Amino acid sequence: MLLSKILILILLLFLLNIIEVESTDQKYSLETRYIEVPLDHFSAVPSPTFFKLRYLINSKYHVRGGPIFVYTGNSVDISIIAQNTGFMFDIAPVFNALLVFIEHRYYGQSLPFGNASFSSPENMRYLSSTQALADYASVIEYLTRSFYENVITYDTYPVVAFGGSYGGMLAAWLRMKYPYSVIGAISSSAPMFYFPGMTNCDLFYDKVTQVFEKFGREQCVKAIKLGWDVIINLSKTKLGMDFISTTWKLCGRLKGPEDTETLLNWLSKIYVNIALANYHYPTDLYTPLPAYPVKVFCDKLTTSYFNDTKGLIEHFSHALEIYTNYTGKRVCNNINSTYDDYTEFAYDYQQCTELIMPKCSTDADMFMTKPWDYEKYSMDCYKKFGVRTLPPDWGLIAYGGKNLKYYSNIVFSNGMMDPYSCGGVTGNMSATVWAFNISDAPHQVDLRNSDVADNNYILGARSFYIQAIKQWLNMA
Amino acid sequence: MLLSKILILILLLFLLNIIEVESTDQKYSLETRYIEVPLDHFSAVPSPTFFKLRYLINSKYHVRGGPIFVYTGNSVDISIIAQNTGFMFDIAPVFNALLVFIEHRYYGQSLPFGNASFSSPENMRYLSSTQALADYASVIEYLTRSFYENVITYDTYPVVAFGGSYGGMLAAWLRMKYPYSVIGAISSSAPMFYFPGMTNCDLFYDKVTQVFEKFGREQCVKAIKLGWDVIINLSKTKLGMDFISTTWKLCGRLKGPEDTETLLNWLSKIYVNIALANYHYPTDLYTPLPAYPVKVFCDKLTTSYFNDTKGLIEHFSHALEIYTNYTGKRVCNNINSTYDDYTEFAYDYQQCTELIMPKCSTDADMFMTKPWDYEKYSMDCYKKFGVRTLPPDWGLIAYGGKNLKYYSNIVFSNGMMDPYSCGGVTGNMSATVWAFNISDAPHQVDLRNSDVADNNYILGARSFYIQAIKQWLNMA
Repeated sequence: MLLSKILILILLLFLLNIIEVESTDQKYSLETRYIEVPLDHFSAVPSPTFFKLRYLINSKYHVRGGPIFVYTGNSVDISIIAQNTGFMFDIAPVFNALLVFIEHRYYGQSLPFGNASFSSPENMRYLSSTQALADYASVIEYLTRSFYENVITYDTYPVVAFGGSYGGMLAAWLRMKYPYSVIGAISSSAPMFYFPGMTNCDLFYDKVTQVFEKFGREQCVKAIKLGWDVIINLSKTKLGMDFISTTWKLCGRLKGPEDTETLLNWLSKIYVNIALANYHYPTDLYTPLPAYPVKVFCDKLTTSYFNDTKGLIEHFSHALEIYTNYTGKRVCNNINSTYDDYTEFAYDYQQCTELIMPKCSTDADMFMTKPWDYEKYSMDCYKKFGVRTLPPDWGLIAYGGKNLKYYSNIVFSNGMMDPYSCGGVTGNMSATVWAFNISDAPHQVDLRNSDVADNNYILGARSFYIQAIKQWLNMA
Repeated sequence: MLLSKILILILLLFLLNIIEVESTDQKYSLETRYIEVPLDHFSAVPSPTFFKLRYLINSKYHVRGGPIFVYTGNSVDISIIAQNTGFMFDIAPVFNALLVFIEHRYYGQSLPFGNASFSSPENMRYLSSTQALADYASVIEYLTRSFYENVITYDTYPVVAFGGSYGGMLAAWLRMKYPYSVIGAISSSAPMFYFPGMTNCDLFYDKVTQVFEKFGREQCVKAIKLGWDVIINLSKTKLGMDFISTTWKLCGRLKGPEDTETLLNWLSKIYVNIALANYHYPTDLYTPLPAYPVKVFCDKLTTSYFNDTKGLIEHFSHALEIYTNYTGKRVCNNINSTYDDYTEFAYDYQQCTELIMPKCSTDADMFMTKPWDYEKYSMDCYKKFGVRTLPPDWGLIAYGGKNLKYYSNIVFSNGMMDPYSCGGVTGNMSATVWAFNISDAPHQVDLRNSDVADNNYILGARSFYIQAIKQWLNMA
């Protein structure tokens, strides 16, 4: 009787979210917390609307007096980020650091209007990098204050920001805009200069091509290039479309030019993602992947497919499974952006408003030739979200473009085989704003956990970050 | 016939605002321009709403290659500010500088929704310091770009920010938040630390009292102190209220406790404004005033008014006219905040949302004893504007509170006889963030035009600013 009462109590606590449990397949253990942050940090709204922002915390290595390492969440569920940022866990014991991963608003569980967060432009308007930065500054102020019992100062509790990709931009911007909030920032693979007028639009796909050329066989890039025309030609007949649909196990059959367009975009995206995640061991960031997925992908495309349409489509089917079905569990491939996944929708919105990164492909790369068309881009965005892109000089006004000489205590790292490195900071900007370029490395590998297969380039980068943080904390 | 047509055309051009004329009683000649700025810099709104922001420009002293001196408009019509910031005109020839005065949104002519700008919380929500700063950064980006023919960089065209009072806070914040936008800032009389938890609430009225003690006779402060009880006692009867109403030439007769409350607040405000504008020559900032208005005011209160209610009220009547009717043109005194004047309403809104400067009076000062009551303040704001005050730690999170050590190239000046100096930066904060304290000086006298009666303290301050600007421009 007593036992059943206890069981009911435990069940209730679970339902009320008072007991948080981590699923056992998680590598790193983290406690989930929530904090109320203002919906709009920059305007007074009739009712002071707050919403719950999620953050994850690990105090296993923390010793009082040690710093707080904060990950400035990017465009994914924060728990995925935490599990893929082993570097912070690896070095926490060295610094007695408390680890905190703050979720970006409108991602994961940090939805200001719950399920209605994406239902209208009015509900989405609070999704922006500037609002997210103010969230982070607020959470940090709260964390440092709560540790020091309402002393109104940041000074006594040093905080270091970490972030990769868009999260790396946020880490750097947090140091730039709120320097009293964080003592320094490790900004990995952040395309800081990837704004209109600052980075040439052809560099991104060119770098993806370089990754395939370096890690795959020569035949691979040729096959990919040939593939665009083959698909377009096959798509002209029902027979051809059915052949692709069946061979590639598409969930829906191709039915016309619009589906073909979708298929081509889906392919492009897979090439990009394989290049970004071309890690030297198996990972599960976008999807489960083998070590060096570019190589594994390319190993399936072994011959010249000139005049061998059937062979090309069939071999591609095997190659694509590296990305789409590495675990062998998937029944069919969905090429549509259905937006069941909020994450993708939210990031698309950000790319349509402020984070406009011009991409174009030319004859020199392995992608279908496509110019950068700001007008079309802006119009597509308007159709999709009902809002216009911000003016092209927004990135310059809001974040200073390439003028980073006034700032301090930031390390910008870039993998030299990361497509986004084309918009990265690859040279020192001031006496303490440094660039660290990692040869051969893909996107944000440096923030991952240490691995026996890590090469000296990666080890060197991490050692550099540790020294930088020690310097910021006056430990050097 | 032709002449009349020309006259009609000229009249039309006037009405259409195509011909801009400066009224001849203006000291400094300025050209009026407008620029479209985003209504919301931090959110994508369904339609990309822009509105016209006004700025004034003077290119008389400008030589190509010279810097731009930008005044970051504060809570008044920008043309009033320009006419009261002679220092920028005085030093422009030394630097070959272009002068630009940017109006703060929701003040003067820069009303996002025209006459409806203050009609609802929804229309007022874009009134904030953070939005204003983004306006200034946008205008500066536009100005520097247009001068250098679309080169996407700020670097080639140095801009120095100037501002007094709230405008001084904005000048400093602009350098802090957008350092690539301005190379340095002269921030005069800016109560940077006047936020909840940072500055004691009793210091402001205490400083006002010091000004009256220093510049007025001893009887004056005693009379003012006595005055509160005298007014309250008189207000208990119709006879007493009528006596005050008649003697002080109030536009409406006092009718009860609410009117008395209004009258007491009106008096407090006059004391504060006289202290703020206690310049050593006649000025016309808030209202036309003689030189040393505190002294002139106090000279009217010559005896002890103990047991002389009639004498006190009558002598006060003459003293108050120094402020209310120095030109002798006013028929009666309106003690109500009628809010015909948008300026006052807009700044009240800002003081109710973000610029919360706690003030209290104690037995030690000459004001009526009044505690600081955040709850009441917040509730009054809600009644007035339908919005709540931002959280008390907003100033710390948004602008870093007293943590200014990470910044560079700012001069903070404070008049030591300026009530707002209690919340000012009066000590150096970093290697190039300096404080300059001006003995005896009132509010923002240093930014006014040079005058034969300026003392060495003021001359010293201005000379210091010139040296600082030369250093920022590598001219030193």
